[in-house]
Amino acid sequence: MGRLTAIVLGAAAGGGFPQWNCRCAVCQLAWAGDPRVTPRTQASLAVSTDERHWVVLNASPDLRAQIAANPILQPQQDLRGSPIVAVVLTGAEVDQVAGLLTLRERQPFALYATTDTLATVSANPMFGVLAPGVVSRQPVSIGDRFTPAPDIEAELFAVPGKLPLYLEGDSPALALETEVNVGVEMRSGGKRLVFVPGAAAVTPELKRRFTYADAIYFDGTLFTDDEMIRTGTGSKSGRRMGHMPIDGEDGTLAALTNLAARRVFIHINNTNPILISGSPERQKVEAAGWEIAEDGLKVVL
Amino acid sequence: MGRLTAIVLGAAAGGGFPQWNCRCAVCQLAWAGDPRVTPRTQASLAVSTDERHWVVLNASPDLRAQIAANPILQPQQDLRGSPIVAVVLTGAEVDQVAGLLTLRERQPFALYATTDTLATVSANPMFGVLAPGVVSRQPVSIGDRFTPAPDIEAELFAVPGKLPLYLEGDSPALALETEVNVGVEMRSGGKRLVFVPGAAAVTPELKRRFTYADAIYFDGTLFTDDEMIRTGTGSKSGRRMGHMPIDGEDGTLAALTNLAARRVFIHINNTNPILISGSPERQKVEAAGWEIAEDGLKVVL
Repeated sequence: MGRLTAIVLGAAAGGGFPQWNCRCAVCQLAWAGDPRVTPRTQASLAVSTDERHWVVLNASPDLRAQIAANPILQPQQDLRGSPIVAVVLTGAEVDQVAGLLTLRERQPFALYATTDTLATVSANPMFGVLAPGVVSRQPVSIGDRFTPAPDIEAELFAVPGKLPLYLEGDSPALALETEVNVGVEMRSGGKRLVFVPGAAAVTPELKRRFTYADAIYFDGTLFTDDEMIRTGTGSKSGRRMGHMPIDGEDGTLAALTNLAARRVFIHINNTNPILISGSPERQKVEAAGWEIAEDGLKVVL
Repeated sequence: MGRLTAIVLGAAAGGGFPQWNCRCAVCQLAWAGDPRVTPRTQASLAVSTDERHWVVLNASPDLRAQIAANPILQPQQDLRGSPIVAVVLTGAEVDQVAGLLTLRERQPFALYATTDTLATVSANPMFGVLAPGVVSRQPVSIGDRFTPAPDIEAELFAVPGKLPLYLEGDSPALALETEVNVGVEMRSGGKRLVFVPGAAAVTPELKRRFTYADAIYFDGTLFTDDEMIRTGTGSKSGRRMGHMPIDGEDGTLAALTNLAARRVFIHINNTNPILISGSPERQKVEAAGWEIAEDGLKVVL
C-alpha cells in the first residue's frame, strides 16, 4: 500500500477561470494572458494510494480536459479501460456532476453519493448514458463508511450549505445541513484528507473533524461575502449561495486556526482576488498558512 | 456584411479523440503523442459573417475548452458578454447538447432546434440553468427559415438518422428521417454552407441540396461500416448508429461525387484511420477531394 495521494484536477468554482462570458477584473487578466494569473478548470480532486486506482471527487464539466492533462488518469492497459474506479459526489450542481457525461462508453466504475444527490442526477434522463448494468450507483448515508478504492476508507459528512430559495427573502441567511451538500473524508494508512468545496459555515463538528485531518481542501469561492455584488457579477451574497467568505470576522481564515493540516483553498470563483499572485488578498491568505489550489497540485500524505 | 465564415470548434465524434477510456490503434497513437495524429474535441462549428456575432452549431461537452482555444469567441466588451449569439442543435445526443451547461451564468442567447430536440433537452431539469427569461428557446420546423445572427439565414433539413431501438433486432437497418436528427444550412451573400454531422444515408433530396452548396461538413464517423465491430470497440454497425461509412459501395465517397463544394469530413470517430496522416484510408479520402476536419479549421466563403 502506498501513501494517500491527491491531485487537484480543477481548482475553480462553477464556470471555471476565466468564466466564458466574464470580463471582471480578474478574468480580464486571464483573457490577456497576464502572468500573475493561471487559468483553472472546475473543482475536482483525484485520490489514490497506489497511483493506479483513482477516485475522482466530483465530476466537473471539464473532466475530459482534466484527463487529457493528467496522463496518470489515461487508460493504461487492455482495449478499453480507465484508472478511474470510482466517482464520489458532494452534491448535484452542474459543476459537480456534468463530467459524468464524459464517463460514458460502457466503462464500469462505481458512483457514490447520497440518495438525494443520486436522485437529482437520475432525474435527468441524459445520465442514462451511464447504463445501470455498467456504472453502479451506490447510495451512501452521512456517516457510513465505504471503500471506493483498495485501501481507501471514505465517509460523507454534513456541511452547512445553500438555503433553499423559499427560505431566502428578508430572513437572515441560515445555513442548513442537508444531504444535498456534503463533504468527503478519505482515510488510508493513518492519514486523513477532507474535501469540502462548498460550506456556508464551520460548525463545531466540522472544526473537530478538521483537527484530525492531514490535508483540508476547503471552499475558497469568495474572498468577501459581498464580492459578487460589488463586482457587479451577481446579486447574492456568498453565504446565500452556500459559500462562507475567506475574509472577515466570521470568514474561513478566522474560523479555521490552530490546525496542523495542509490547508488548501479550492473551488475558487473567477472574481476572487486570491487568484492574482502578489495581490494583498493572496498575501493575507498565504500569511495565514493557506495554499491556493492550482490544477495539477499534488499532495502526498 | 462580411463573408460567410466557419471555424471548426471540434472535429471528433462523441467521446472526442482520443476517447477517455480507449486504447484502440488510433487512440494509442494519440496517447503516445505520435505526430501522425492530432487530438480533436467533439464536433461543433462556429459560423459568422462579421466575426463579431457567432452561431454555434451543436454545443459539445468540450465547449468551454473550445472557447478557450478560440479568442474570437471570448467576451470582447462590457462586464459580461459573449460573441456567441445563438446555438443551433441538429439533435439531442450528449455530444450535441452537453455544452449548453457551459453557457450558464445568465448570458442571453437564442437556442434553435426542432420541437422534439428542445423537448429532449428540457426533459433534463439540469438545463434549467439556462433560465427561460435569459435564453430563448426557439422551436424550428424542418424547412422553416430563421435568422440566428445578422445577415445569416438558416434552415434545418431532414437527414436519415438512427433507427429507434425497437426497430433493430433482425430486421434490415432502415434509415429514418425524423425531427431528432437534422442538418443545418446557413446562407449569406449568395453562399451556402451545410452541416450534417450524422447521416445514415444520402437521399436524392440531400444530394440535390449539396449540389448548390459552397461548403459541406459531413458525417465522417466511420471509414467502414463494421469498423467498431472489427476493432472490438462496439457491437453495432455504423448504419445502426445512424452513420453511413465513408468507404464501400454505398459509402459517402461513392454517394457524393461531382460536387463543386469544399467537402470536409467532421464528427470523426476515434477508431477511424483517416485520423492518421499518411494512412491509406486518409490518402483515399484526400484523393477523392475531401478534407479531414481538425479543430481550428477556418473556411471563408
